[in-house]
Amino acid sequence: MIVSWVTPNELGNSTVMYGGAPDKLELRAEGVHTRYDYFNYTSGFIHHCFLKNLKHRTKYYYAMGFGHTVRTFWFTTPPKPGPDVPYKFGLIGDLGQTFDSNITLSHYEENGGDAVLFVGDLSYADNHPLHDNNRWDTWGRFAERSVAYQPWIWTAGNHELDFAPELGETAPFKPFTHRYPTPHRAAGSTEPFWYSVRMASAHVIVLASYSAYGKYTPQWAWLQDELARVDRKVTPWLIVLMHSPWYNSNSYHYMEGETMRVQFERWLVDARADLVLAGHVHSYERSHRVSNVAYDIINGKSTPARDAAAPVYVTIGDGGNIEGIADNFTQPQPSYSAFREASFGHATLEIKNRTHAYYAWHRNQDGAKVVADGVWLTNRYWLPTQDDTN
Amino acid sequence: MIVSWVTPNELGNSTVMYGGAPDKLELRAEGVHTRYDYFNYTSGFIHHCFLKNLKHRTKYYYAMGFGHTVRTFWFTTPPKPGPDVPYKFGLIGDLGQTFDSNITLSHYEENGGDAVLFVGDLSYADNHPLHDNNRWDTWGRFAERSVAYQPWIWTAGNHELDFAPELGETAPFKPFTHRYPTPHRAAGSTEPFWYSVRMASAHVIVLASYSAYGKYTPQWAWLQDELARVDRKVTPWLIVLMHSPWYNSNSYHYMEGETMRVQFERWLVDARADLVLAGHVHSYERSHRVSNVAYDIINGKSTPARDAAAPVYVTIGDGGNIEGIADNFTQPQPSYSAFREASFGHATLEIKNRTHAYYAWHRNQDGAKVVADGVWLTNRYWLPTQDDTN
Ligand SMILES: [Fe+2]
Ligand SMILES: [Fe+2]
Repeated sequence: MIVSWVTPNELGNSTVMYGGAPDKLELRAEGVHTRYDYFNYTSGFIHHCFLKNLKHRTKYYYAMGFGHTVRTFWFTTPPKPGPDVPYKFGLIGDLGQTFDSNITLSHYEENGGDAVLFVGDLSYADNHPLHDNNRWDTWGRFAERSVAYQPWIWTAGNHELDFAPELGETAPFKPFTHRYPTPHRAAGSTEPFWYSVRMASAHVIVLASYSAYGKYTPQWAWLQDELARVDRKVTPWLIVLMHSPWYNSNSYHYMEGETMRVQFERWLVDARADLVLAGHVHSYERSHRVSNVAYDIINGKSTPARDAAAPVYVTIGDGGNIEGIADNFTQPQPSYSAFREASFGHATLEIKNRTHAYYAWHRNQDGAKVVADGVWLTNRYWLPTQDDTN
Repeated sequence: MIVSWVTPNELGNSTVMYGGAPDKLELRAEGVHTRYDYFNYTSGFIHHCFLKNLKHRTKYYYAMGFGHTVRTFWFTTPPKPGPDVPYKFGLIGDLGQTFDSNITLSHYEENGGDAVLFVGDLSYADNHPLHDNNRWDTWGRFAERSVAYQPWIWTAGNHELDFAPELGETAPFKPFTHRYPTPHRAAGSTEPFWYSVRMASAHVIVLASYSAYGKYTPQWAWLQDELARVDRKVTPWLIVLMHSPWYNSNSYHYMEGETMRVQFERWLVDARADLVLAGHVHSYERSHRVSNVAYDIINGKSTPARDAAAPVYVTIGDGGNIEGIADNFTQPQPSYSAFREASFGHATLEIKNRTHAYYAWHRNQDGAKVVADGVWLTNRYWLPTQDDTN
């Protein structure tokens, strides 16, 4: 588990103490700290501490801020990977820090997931003058109530780029990489933007929509190797995250994911991925199981077609952010699209065992407990021919 | 003009003296030096010296190595940009350092171009054990006979990646960026892999097949701005370079350029680009003027179609390299392909004025002076409706 925090005024120290009870924090880990400048902004001291040798499925209390203001939080580690280990993911994207963001996060908390798969676009600091990085700090404080208590798996969105040559800021992802480290080295990745984690019965692959993915590039090479490492007998559920969706029928950001789809869709279909999650488009959409991998330039076969081997594509970029809802869907609804609605919300994925998982979208206006779109997903490895989502 | 050289054993100095005659080198420029390690290899001292305030269309002699072994070379600067300024480019790709490479370069020298547009894959050092970087040194010595005497415009190919995590080498393009700087800052670019130069009547844009190009990325943002800066009244000829071709019908590397084509083809057609050059495939091919930009996921319109507004696509990856020729074309020849042949060679582009340029491919077995494929190109801005290449 990586614990990260900011001390705004003083360096303090990077120590985390942790253990099985709030008054028994007998384990100790030393972190590191960093900081960065962004135009006229200077960050606080950003601490990152890697807690190792944790037991699976165990509640740990942890504290930091020693010598100054000590704060104590807790998390429960994921269960050991295994084919029938149940687990509940929250699926959230494009969260921002608005009134709607707050509702979304509250509803997710009420629904009680074990970990969040976050598909990118965190703070929307870049929508403020000079990419006001104070908004990165306020977002950290806003999200702490969940992020400090369970794993959040980060994906880099376009609002993480913070590429602003007009401000002299030419290093992409500068605030994001300083604030949100990912366990990419453990996944054999050379960059923080693409990596994987195994949690319970799920193998989660995070891809980078805004890094290079052409053949021979580091991300391409890593994904090829990573897909070969997936063992569906141990982790039956193969879930892939990215920011820009491959299948989405909203006019907003229409076809932006095409370039990456063209590169990688064949691999995900061949790998029998179960679920591909994206954000970016600020509304909700779920696809049928479709693929579009027959194209060879001259055969004209370029239309998405039903394919039982293909994953379900979900766009969950409706976290609720400062840019508002994307309510301009293309008409008519294309045949690859199973359900779409321009409402804020979040989704959950409840893995029950190796064959079944229940996927549900919870829109904000209904409250947390009402499912506006729900389907049983059958696993593509263990029940490959059973189509489930119609 | 950027002058680069290596001193293998001693640092020496980075000074270049230059002037109008070999015995009148009254101008002086101070360069910088760098070096790098690559696994078990340590480079010599790599010097880069930027000669500024040069006059157009002027022959300069230049010398370096002062205090040790002084060597003198010369170059002629390109003429001032203007709409009817003639200029002759050599078009070379995937050169390597074989017997065939040597013939290709000799033939180009006999054909006498003013500058080379090089579409990537220089040394093929990475095809040798441990990416033997001595091959980068030998390639520099091999190519010096042309590179030291006229501008070569560099494009990064996959053989420039040198991404080898198994050797601990995880920074892409490490040897290339240390050895071959590009004038990217002058072009408003933030990375050396995409940039532009204006020479005579040509505006040359270099794109990076192995960097990120998704929407919002630095390359994407730069290209959008750069296309708006092109002034066809001053530089009528818009030429775009990349490594991986968008239109190529060889089985070798088939469709590898699709992902970038999907992202950028519309822009190049709208900009009325004249010529798009690529390498990567080790054979020769020229397209008709075609485009494939009507696709919207659901309309099935994904077949390349004749389009007078579109550029001609040339694959010139037949420089002659250690991997051999790519002689496995798809059958039948698709309608977008005008000419294709699996022979080593190079091409030339002779711009005559704002409306006409003569393009020619010279295959090695014929000798330099024989044109195996030649067409008159009419400018897409000044003669947009005249189709020329049939
Ligand atoms: Fe986004
Ligand atoms: Fe290549």
